[in-house]
Amino acid sequence: MVSAPSIVRRSIPVYELLGDEALCAIEDQADWILKEIGIEFRGDEEALALFRDAGASVDGERVRFDPGHARALSATAPREFRMESRNRDHAIVLGGDHLVFMPGYGSPFVTDLEKGRRYASLEDFENFVKLTYASPWLHHSGGTVCEPVDVPVNKRHLDMVYAHLRWSDKPFMGGVTAPDRARDSISMARIAFGADYLEDHCVIQANINVNSPLVYDGTMSSSLRIYAEAGQSTAISPAIFGGAMGPVTQPAVLAQTHAEILAGIALSQLVRPGTPVVYGNFNTTMNLKTGALTFGTPESNLSNMAFAQLGRRLGVPVRCGGQLTASNTADAHAMQESTSFMMAGIMAGSNFMYHAAGWLEGGLTMSYEKFVMDLDHCGMMLRMVAGLEVDEGAFARDSYFEAGPGQAFFGTQHTLANFETANYCSQLPDAGPYETWLENGAPDMQQRAQGRWKQMLADYVAPDLDPAINEELRDYMAVRKAAMPDQWY
Amino acid sequence: MVSAPSIVRRSIPVYELLGDEALCAIEDQADWILKEIGIEFRGDEEALALFRDAGASVDGERVRFDPGHARALSATAPREFRMESRNRDHAIVLGGDHLVFMPGYGSPFVTDLEKGRRYASLEDFENFVKLTYASPWLHHSGGTVCEPVDVPVNKRHLDMVYAHLRWSDKPFMGGVTAPDRARDSISMARIAFGADYLEDHCVIQANINVNSPLVYDGTMSSSLRIYAEAGQSTAISPAIFGGAMGPVTQPAVLAQTHAEILAGIALSQLVRPGTPVVYGNFNTTMNLKTGALTFGTPESNLSNMAFAQLGRRLGVPVRCGGQLTASNTADAHAMQESTSFMMAGIMAGSNFMYHAAGWLEGGLTMSYEKFVMDLDHCGMMLRMVAGLEVDEGAFARDSYFEAGPGQAFFGTQHTLANFETANYCSQLPDAGPYETWLENGAPDMQQRAQGRWKQMLADYVAPDLDPAINEELRDYMAVRKAAMPDQWY
Repeated sequence: MVSAPSIVRRSIPVYELLGDEALCAIEDQADWILKEIGIEFRGDEEALALFRDAGASVDGERVRFDPGHARALSATAPREFRMESRNRDHAIVLGGDHLVFMPGYGSPFVTDLEKGRRYASLEDFENFVKLTYASPWLHHSGGTVCEPVDVPVNKRHLDMVYAHLRWSDKPFMGGVTAPDRARDSISMARIAFGADYLEDHCVIQANINVNSPLVYDGTMSSSLRIYAEAGQSTAISPAIFGGAMGPVTQPAVLAQTHAEILAGIALSQLVRPGTPVVYGNFNTTMNLKTGALTFGTPESNLSNMAFAQLGRRLGVPVRCGGQLTASNTADAHAMQESTSFMMAGIMAGSNFMYHAAGWLEGGLTMSYEKFVMDLDHCGMMLRMVAGLEVDEGAFARDSYFEAGPGQAFFGTQHTLANFETANYCSQLPDAGPYETWLENGAPDMQQRAQGRWKQMLADYVAPDLDPAINEELRDYMAVRKAAMPDQWY
Repeated sequence: MVSAPSIVRRSIPVYELLGDEALCAIEDQADWILKEIGIEFRGDEEALALFRDAGASVDGERVRFDPGHARALSATAPREFRMESRNRDHAIVLGGDHLVFMPGYGSPFVTDLEKGRRYASLEDFENFVKLTYASPWLHHSGGTVCEPVDVPVNKRHLDMVYAHLRWSDKPFMGGVTAPDRARDSISMARIAFGADYLEDHCVIQANINVNSPLVYDGTMSSSLRIYAEAGQSTAISPAIFGGAMGPVTQPAVLAQTHAEILAGIALSQLVRPGTPVVYGNFNTTMNLKTGALTFGTPESNLSNMAFAQLGRRLGVPVRCGGQLTASNTADAHAMQESTSFMMAGIMAGSNFMYHAAGWLEGGLTMSYEKFVMDLDHCGMMLRMVAGLEVDEGAFARDSYFEAGPGQAFFGTQHTLANFETANYCSQLPDAGPYETWLENGAPDMQQRAQGRWKQMLADYVAPDLDPAINEELRDYMAVRKAAMPDQWY
């Protein structure tokens, strides 16, 4: 296993797409939405009460904010925060100039070249947790890395949280699909880390989807409140496909996204000021003639770039980018989209990338092969954000006296001293020259990737877990499972 | 045929990777190389005489410059310039905030899914000229789009220049592989445009490769002089694979590239002050363990970003980026590399991209399928550099009164008015949902691209060419071909 730091800081500048005037206009439009249209919090009386007490206008389930009010309520959210892990060496920092990669989230299917596409199982879930643990390029173990559909819907969260704690020691996400599942997740985190420890440390996180346009459903806002009460982090993610959940033009999508997140951050801070949040989105574009979702498109790239600017201005960690694709297989299409969106997010200054590895088919499927292909690109991006060190040593003046005009530099002292570290080394096999490649059966990258994930799983060694904690976690799960009838949908 | 402007200006900022201090340090190191090591001009007495007369130190074939001297000699090179075409609507501007895409250059092989990989022929060459002409996303017809190896080496340039003039009316590149071939190319341009016209218009361009490290061979420097004498443009391209043709560290590669180009630009300006040049490179990285060339790597991306900054500081048009890959087939590997390098070049502010379409196998092969896959990405990049228009109209306030919280925006006036133009529309067939895709035989992107280039060729209509000019061009070729015995290597 290649070791690499879990706390990554970028050494290259962020890209500033829009100027202040355009950014202010977007913020003003968000204020207009919050005032004139408002956000609905459906089926969550507690959230409505908190907003009412804070001075927002609450009309039925619709919450409206005067200009600047939601932003003011969000002011206590930290600019950056640390997530602890069972292994201190795997703690991460979200925000500022830090960068965190997390695997795919939410796919009901998995695929690999041998077994093909099928519903994901708990075994698949554990495999992706193990692969993520084994990779030096992923810093966060993720949440629902894939849906373990062989476990009842109402018990899955227990097995998922357990898998993150047992088969990894990287930071992770817990359940959110019902208030009880959020509470169970936090209870298990308390067992693993100690209840007191959670009072002033963030060890678990929740992905909070906004039911765009302009709606938080009660399940999500309740989970947000439960994590916030426990001082644990939420990452708030509107999902706007322009033309469907909002206007088709990206500036409108940005303003609406900003408005939706501000309402969520405000709620988190009303529950517990200072609780850590992430400014996220899962916005993308659609082919409006066919209705197909599209990824890594120019419009979504630009939108992500501007989005990161808005998050920085708000002063909170930003989630954007990721290796997303609509492709059904890990082909050229998959990588054209994934790479474009990844580069856009990296340049934009994203702090936190969901779906950095494995994602196919608009998120319906996690691919074992694409997972390791994406991992390799994550490694490249981590090298890229380290930037260029321009100093005397890098100019290698002496080597020009060893190899002058027309002479090869292979044998110079400088090349010999640096050739192993100067460039990122891919962990996938080279294709090799055409003739050799033909002799080998002309394997494409997806085929060459197959051996890599198998080897990673074969080499996997589980991290230590205190047997007493393990037993307590297993007991907790057993009690909780026994208390509920199985639900399958 | 989708029409699109041939003169493209970017509306998004360039990315500034390095600060002034680092850029000055690289320029100083270039000055050090030019002074202490120097550049060899081999077998070109005229070039050496020009440098000697200009006050450079000439020792045998080695030319050394005092700090700042080569830069001062380059000062007359224009910041931006226009290339005319036979069709005024296809003129381009290189430099400033303009962006020009050109197809692949120099591949001896071609490949397509039906016929497989084989040596390129004149028919293939003509096909790629036609495909380039038919695409709204390529602005420059290129030069040696592939090597027509069925034509003798010493006569190829005639057929290639003729094909650019006959089957396209976009700007193009002429021959450079011998002084006579450069002169023939310019003579044919004079026939097509009128000899007088060339005196104050740029209509043809030459790619000048530097024989890195630090060597111009006589063929290239002679061709450079011949184009410059005619007031025609050269694009100067060092090719440094760090560790082989220069030190392995990118800051050293950048300084050496800068030094090599400065010597070439200085020569062009000594021949004819004000002659248009392009600051180019074909630098990439190597896997120094296997010797394989690698593309779209983090190091080459960073290097290209800094390179564009150096060119802007010099005040000349910059060539960098492109859709390059080492992959032997148009798979995920091809697009991970191509897309990454393309994005890096676009963000960097490249003015001119060679190899924007078709390139496979480290440049050994032009792929028909990859060509149209790359084209689609060129279209996306052109949309991306247009940026976001943040104005009242884009905020679509009215639509929030048609579709409020929780309601779809599909039917709003704003969506209906904008859904066809809001997003870039791919010209390749969608994969479609998984089940449909399976029923269709699970075609990957390469397979879906096959029909596209065939349709483009079937739909191709040649541009007009004055029959008298056509005859004169054909006569010129016949006379020149008759005057030379065939050479095959």
